[in-house]
Amino acid sequence: MKPTEKNLTGKHLIGGKYCGSGRRKFRAVNPAAGEPLEPAFCEAGAAEVNRALELADKAFEVLQTVPVKAIAALLERIADRLEADADRIIARAHSETALPPERLRSELARTAGQSRAFAALARDGSWAQARIDHALPARKPLPKPDIRALFMGVGPVAVFGAGNFPLAISAAGTDTVAAFAARCPVVVKGHPAHPGTCELVARVIAGSAAWAGLPAGMFSLVQSSGHEAGLGLVRHPLTAAVAFTGSLRGGRALFDAAAARPEPIPVYAEMGSVNPVFILPGAAAARAEELAEGFVRSLNAGVGQYCTNPGMVLAVAGTSFDRFLAAVCAKASRVPPAFMLHAGIQAAYDRGTARLSSIRGVKPAGSSGTGAPRGAGPKTAACKIFTADAGLIRRRPELSEEVFGPAAVIYRCKNTAQMLELARGMPGSLTATIHGFERELLAHGGLVRVLQRKAGRILFNGFPTGLEPCASLHHGGPYPAATHSFFTSVGTAAIYRYVRPVCFQGFADAALPEELRENNPRRVRRLVDGALDTF
Amino acid sequence: MKPTEKNLTGKHLIGGKYCGSGRRKFRAVNPAAGEPLEPAFCEAGAAEVNRALELADKAFEVLQTVPVKAIAALLERIADRLEADADRIIARAHSETALPPERLRSELARTAGQSRAFAALARDGSWAQARIDHALPARKPLPKPDIRALFMGVGPVAVFGAGNFPLAISAAGTDTVAAFAARCPVVVKGHPAHPGTCELVARVIAGSAAWAGLPAGMFSLVQSSGHEAGLGLVRHPLTAAVAFTGSLRGGRALFDAAAARPEPIPVYAEMGSVNPVFILPGAAAARAEELAEGFVRSLNAGVGQYCTNPGMVLAVAGTSFDRFLAAVCAKASRVPPAFMLHAGIQAAYDRGTARLSSIRGVKPAGSSGTGAPRGAGPKTAACKIFTADAGLIRRRPELSEEVFGPAAVIYRCKNTAQMLELARGMPGSLTATIHGFERELLAHGGLVRVLQRKAGRILFNGFPTGLEPCASLHHGGPYPAATHSFFTSVGTAAIYRYVRPVCFQGFADAALPEELRENNPRRVRRLVDGALDTF
Repeated sequence: MKPTEKNLTGKHLIGGKYCGSGRRKFRAVNPAAGEPLEPAFCEAGAAEVNRALELADKAFEVLQTVPVKAIAALLERIADRLEADADRIIARAHSETALPPERLRSELARTAGQSRAFAALARDGSWAQARIDHALPARKPLPKPDIRALFMGVGPVAVFGAGNFPLAISAAGTDTVAAFAARCPVVVKGHPAHPGTCELVARVIAGSAAWAGLPAGMFSLVQSSGHEAGLGLVRHPLTAAVAFTGSLRGGRALFDAAAARPEPIPVYAEMGSVNPVFILPGAAAARAEELAEGFVRSLNAGVGQYCTNPGMVLAVAGTSFDRFLAAVCAKASRVPPAFMLHAGIQAAYDRGTARLSSIRGVKPAGSSGTGAPRGAGPKTAACKIFTADAGLIRRRPELSEEVFGPAAVIYRCKNTAQMLELARGMPGSLTATIHGFERELLAHGGLVRVLQRKAGRILFNGFPTGLEPCASLHHGGPYPAATHSFFTSVGTAAIYRYVRPVCFQGFADAALPEELRENNPRRVRRLVDGALDTF
Repeated sequence: MKPTEKNLTGKHLIGGKYCGSGRRKFRAVNPAAGEPLEPAFCEAGAAEVNRALELADKAFEVLQTVPVKAIAALLERIADRLEADADRIIARAHSETALPPERLRSELARTAGQSRAFAALARDGSWAQARIDHALPARKPLPKPDIRALFMGVGPVAVFGAGNFPLAISAAGTDTVAAFAARCPVVVKGHPAHPGTCELVARVIAGSAAWAGLPAGMFSLVQSSGHEAGLGLVRHPLTAAVAFTGSLRGGRALFDAAAARPEPIPVYAEMGSVNPVFILPGAAAARAEELAEGFVRSLNAGVGQYCTNPGMVLAVAGTSFDRFLAAVCAKASRVPPAFMLHAGIQAAYDRGTARLSSIRGVKPAGSSGTGAPRGAGPKTAACKIFTADAGLIRRRPELSEEVFGPAAVIYRCKNTAQMLELARGMPGSLTATIHGFERELLAHGGLVRVLQRKAGRILFNGFPTGLEPCASLHHGGPYPAATHSFFTSVGTAAIYRYVRPVCFQGFADAALPEELRENNPRRVRRLVDGALDTF
């Protein structure tokens, strides 16, 4: 029995209407069963992409004039309806991704929570950073004009969700709700591995927009399993910005296409990262087993399919190192086998771990079992631990590339000076982690300063997986972690991906956006003549 | 007599030391005399670029640890020393650019003022937007970790100054002082048309860094007249960000080079823009002559060599239009001849105005005299006014491209509906201007909303030239006005070009940057658990 298929049309949802024709179709595959799922989904072509963007473009102008309470109501409604439809959505997402239902249930809660957080952000309005510099008509030698500015939406946004977060970073993920909060329309390119989940969620969004009285063109979902529709979205002249979460190769392809446009647009891609973990000697000596426990748990969270997955550990050679490595291998051997998101990711993981094994000086140190192969059924992934001398990192740059999945290399350093030197040569990462006693952290300020250049988030005595979407979170980092290190893909600051400052000079008060009017009718936090004006 | 040459070495100034060798040299040219200026300047090669960036990279780590008062003192010292050395700097800038000494004097004052504004910004510290979300160890189902974030410098910045602002947007211009305020080192590529001015200003910066006890590697000037040194700066692996002000062609070439790097970096280019002016019917009827006066003054400010120069006017056909056009032509005919910045700009202006003349339907309407040609001496530029039916704009996209210099086309619209339709099709601009009565502005809210998508700054009853560098100013806009519409090149918000968020999770208080420590020792404005924490 396939309980979810009858709810799905297999069509695109463009401006509130299902559409789709043509013979080219694709199907999602159940990664645990290795079997295609019903229904077949239409492949979007240039006509669908164009239609979605023309509607989005028209909707953008309308969205500038609707009351903010309609935007906030939409975002809250999306959260409510996701929760109301949770069972159906989770069932389909489970069949498309093999992620456990309990994990998907907490991801759905996070997705609804994000939408409500952006509703609150929109309603509050202070995110727009309204600034006012009053005129000084008597100033010499020249009068000073009245200048005011705030952040406003950029226009239609194209969103490419992540395979590993079919809810929180997909059709109704942070990018979509952040763009809505900024009054931007969104065209989602459905993820080819979970198109049914995308359709169910898109239905929630379209229904919520209708309920809130907002223009249907503000949201479209186009389905496609190939590259052309996505590239078409990025190249379309009406697209103003692009969000992508996924592989370095995929993100770079979209970035390159956007940079080559006659009018380049930003592609905010959050991509791969190796997320190094530095264990200082005191911590290694005092808590080798405890660190191993936390590390193996983090490495295997979501079958290693998190972008913050810690793929590289550096510790100083010696008995503490040996105890840590032995404990990691012991714990890794007990990790139960699990299915990855889809056969393509499993194959890439197999290639990545085979490449690690093939590097002279990298030694397999431990592994979980892969479970017995079940006839011709799909494979499960094994947690794989390797070890090597840290000096190898400099000689083999591919060791600093992400292997997506539950694999890590534990590097033996000569001393902490070598750790620092290697940190200096590392590429950008979403996260970097230091374990140590507080006095060790203070004694290694140089390491912190180097990691500040390399990572978007630096953790002390924690593990990088598991994001806390709050105002302080930064989920991004220097390339290849992200294509632009200023912007975050998670947390309320993600709204700044979809806005730009608009400055008004000498304007009539009644013609200004509400946030800039003299009497501050929306009571937003503003900077007025350099001083804060709050309520 | 050439009074300034003996002060100049013609060398690069790399990390506080003059250097330069090789036979390849270039000279600045006095645009008013058409004669080369002494001395000859060295052409930088890959070795100079590399040396400058290696020193900058080392200096970056040091800059993270110096007290903020040293950064602020540097910026104030630069302002003081520019003012102390004003006569010499202005004399050389005048001979290299033909800009009038009084204009250069006010530009120097603005340059010093900017440096002091960034000193104040750095000292205040609130620009870093420190955010703290405290831990909730008892939260269910998972404890919430302590997360804190702030903006920190990105690393070495390459700066390409503008030919038309040899002081305010050059060696010690906004980009340099904004990067310093963010604790970033700077490598300036000297402008080939004013290398002597760059050397004199670079000397001020290097001397000020030494005086403030800051690392000499934080600033370098490399001189070059070609493209290779500049491309070398953009392609160098240690460069973290690039600032450019100049032509669309130049900016796009750097943008493309940066996007093609193995690790792309942002190029913040502020480029050409046509800066449309919309005159609503009531204003045209009531104040045609007054508008013509202001318009011709703005069009000819700095011999039309401002990026905010208004090159396109739209007004409704009729007697008011005719009065406005006649008044513009009358006033334009009395504009005195003036030299442009250099022969290349003059030639491009001649090509641009010839191209306008050659378009069928574009009619020459008025012009100033070019002055009598003085033998074989350089030409002066004439203010040129053209007119055309507005419908032509859609059919001839080249009419929406900037002609750099004192030329404008005054378009005859059928009605304000056509204005709105044409505004919708326009490319990005730094500015857009509306003239009208207040009630007309309110009645044309649709035009304002369309211009919000097109321009970085929208003026009402003003003229776009003449920037007010304050917190509310935005000087940027959608492409081709700038390569990234989020960032400004003028005003204190320019600091955000050179920073990115760094997030700290679970950190020991003493290991955090001061702005994030629990007791807020720097008393910066922070967002703590969603609420504002100010002093």
